[in-house]
Amino acid sequence: MSDTFAIVIHGGAGTISADTMTPEKHKAYTEGLKAALDAGYTILAKGGTSLDAVQAAVTSLEDCPLFNAGKGAVFNNKGQHEMDAAIMNGKDKTAGAVCGISRAKNPVAVARAVMEHTEHVLLAGEGANQFAEAQGLPLEDDAYFYNEFRYRQWQEALQEDKVQLDHSEKKMGTVGAVALDQFGNLAASTSTGGMTNKKYGRVGDSPLIGAGTWADNNTCAISCTGHGELFIRSVVAYDIACLMSYGKESLHDACNEVVMQKLVAIGGEGGLIAIDKAGNIEMPFNSSGMYRAYRRNNGEEKIAIYK
Amino acid sequence: MSDTFAIVIHGGAGTISADTMTPEKHKAYTEGLKAALDAGYTILAKGGTSLDAVQAAVTSLEDCPLFNAGKGAVFNNKGQHEMDAAIMNGKDKTAGAVCGISRAKNPVAVARAVMEHTEHVLLAGEGANQFAEAQGLPLEDDAYFYNEFRYRQWQEALQEDKVQLDHSEKKMGTVGAVALDQFGNLAASTSTGGMTNKKYGRVGDSPLIGAGTWADNNTCAISCTGHGELFIRSVVAYDIACLMSYGKESLHDACNEVVMQKLVAIGGEGGLIAIDKAGNIEMPFNSSGMYRAYRRNNGEEKIAIYK
Repeated sequence: MSDTFAIVIHGGAGTISADTMTPEKHKAYTEGLKAALDAGYTILAKGGTSLDAVQAAVTSLEDCPLFNAGKGAVFNNKGQHEMDAAIMNGKDKTAGAVCGISRAKNPVAVARAVMEHTEHVLLAGEGANQFAEAQGLPLEDDAYFYNEFRYRQWQEALQEDKVQLDHSEKKMGTVGAVALDQFGNLAASTSTGGMTNKKYGRVGDSPLIGAGTWADNNTCAISCTGHGELFIRSVVAYDIACLMSYGKESLHDACNEVVMQKLVAIGGEGGLIAIDKAGNIEMPFNSSGMYRAYRRNNGEEKIAIYK
Repeated sequence: MSDTFAIVIHGGAGTISADTMTPEKHKAYTEGLKAALDAGYTILAKGGTSLDAVQAAVTSLEDCPLFNAGKGAVFNNKGQHEMDAAIMNGKDKTAGAVCGISRAKNPVAVARAVMEHTEHVLLAGEGANQFAEAQGLPLEDDAYFYNEFRYRQWQEALQEDKVQLDHSEKKMGTVGAVALDQFGNLAASTSTGGMTNKKYGRVGDSPLIGAGTWADNNTCAISCTGHGELFIRSVVAYDIACLMSYGKESLHDACNEVVMQKLVAIGGEGGLIAIDKAGNIEMPFNSSGMYRAYRRNNGEEKIAIYK
């Protein structure tokens, strides 16, 4: 048993500035983060698992249209939604993930089903949709995913013929959660709609085990958000775990080295959330903002957006 | 400049036994490996790059119907071919990959184009096919990929309603190459047709940077073959790099620890090929066999199948 338990969440990192944030938007984002925190923390407080907690938190963020995942997923180049998600259990390092899924209401639920009901880790594209359907998981049509803000965002990107990480403010749109439960087990989950106007079935780091998502009781649980390609090439999440296990670094030092030094050196904008088995929490980011929050069983809570 | 250069290739690992291997089959596999070795080594000997060499070797293996990649790719549950490939340049850690691609003659060429002609690392499914077409890369129809042996293999798996890693002998069908060139640069590439009778767009470790494929001049170049799911969850290729960089282990010790200890402990059958910047070569596997070969500029050459 662990005498500390906690959940940490993020709703994406990027060029988020207080100048362009209205009080109404600030309140809405804060409420969205708080709802996800509540969803995950409630499970931990009742003696539930970190795995269930991260799934509940990510589900809440997927259901909130403000964040680029699930209902709020951005449009791709064809005006469709292609989403990626992953979940990993630090207790036994089992994992499930989907990429390029387009009809699932909650991609994280499909990732969980991949982990628990198949021998596989990663399912892609139309196959992932068919798996979600075969599992009887909730599917939605285009109307559910339609959002006027996202549509305008796509139309602008389409005219400029460029991909956008998210929003006009270059926000990396991803959501994620990591948690430590009362049993001392870690878990991590990440979900995203990817880049606005993305072409050719582009997949980022979110659904890739070791890149955007990682959980191992021996080291840490990590969920990343940022410029996916650079996060993939840096194997960000597993790099932090290795700096801890082989390099004997603390969670703090490992996160700092990867996010504030290694990623900065290659222009890899973004951040991550992390927790270790002692309950240490890190939320480093090298962009101007990251939607983030955590709550511990000692009552400590933080919800923040800017530096 | 490096005073040593070399290429290492594999054609998959698994339960390959001398008992079921006819002299004709043995000769054919050996010739297939030798042709790939020649294709890659010729480039290195002429002063070409390790990147071009690994692509040439993998292309040769993709074009050979004996190996589960490209022309020899296995059938999925719907009687189609869904292939995965990756390539990585150790000089600058740029990378390109595709998963679930079905029409490209040489998936490795598409992966190389992703690396060089997009800002992305990984393209999935139909989007990857459209990218290959837009790049003017050779596409093939079902007839090209048809192979009576593979078809019977699929029919058997279909009747038994199971997926197979490859062949009835449970061979992990993947091809790959790693190389060190005269400039001291490392590169790696992996390509596969995945599992016979696979469903739902299953993706293994081959196209995932850090899992099945990795190259970094500071540590090593790796290409894996084996039970993909367990290789993903172990982030096999990057784990070896981290054991070298943070754990100060030699290439030999790192490969041995991961393949013969860590993977064995979780039932992760398979192997890998590896090379470091000093030209040290490792080809460990924990299965009964692995199609493998290497050649160095000092004339040293080895082509082997069993332990």
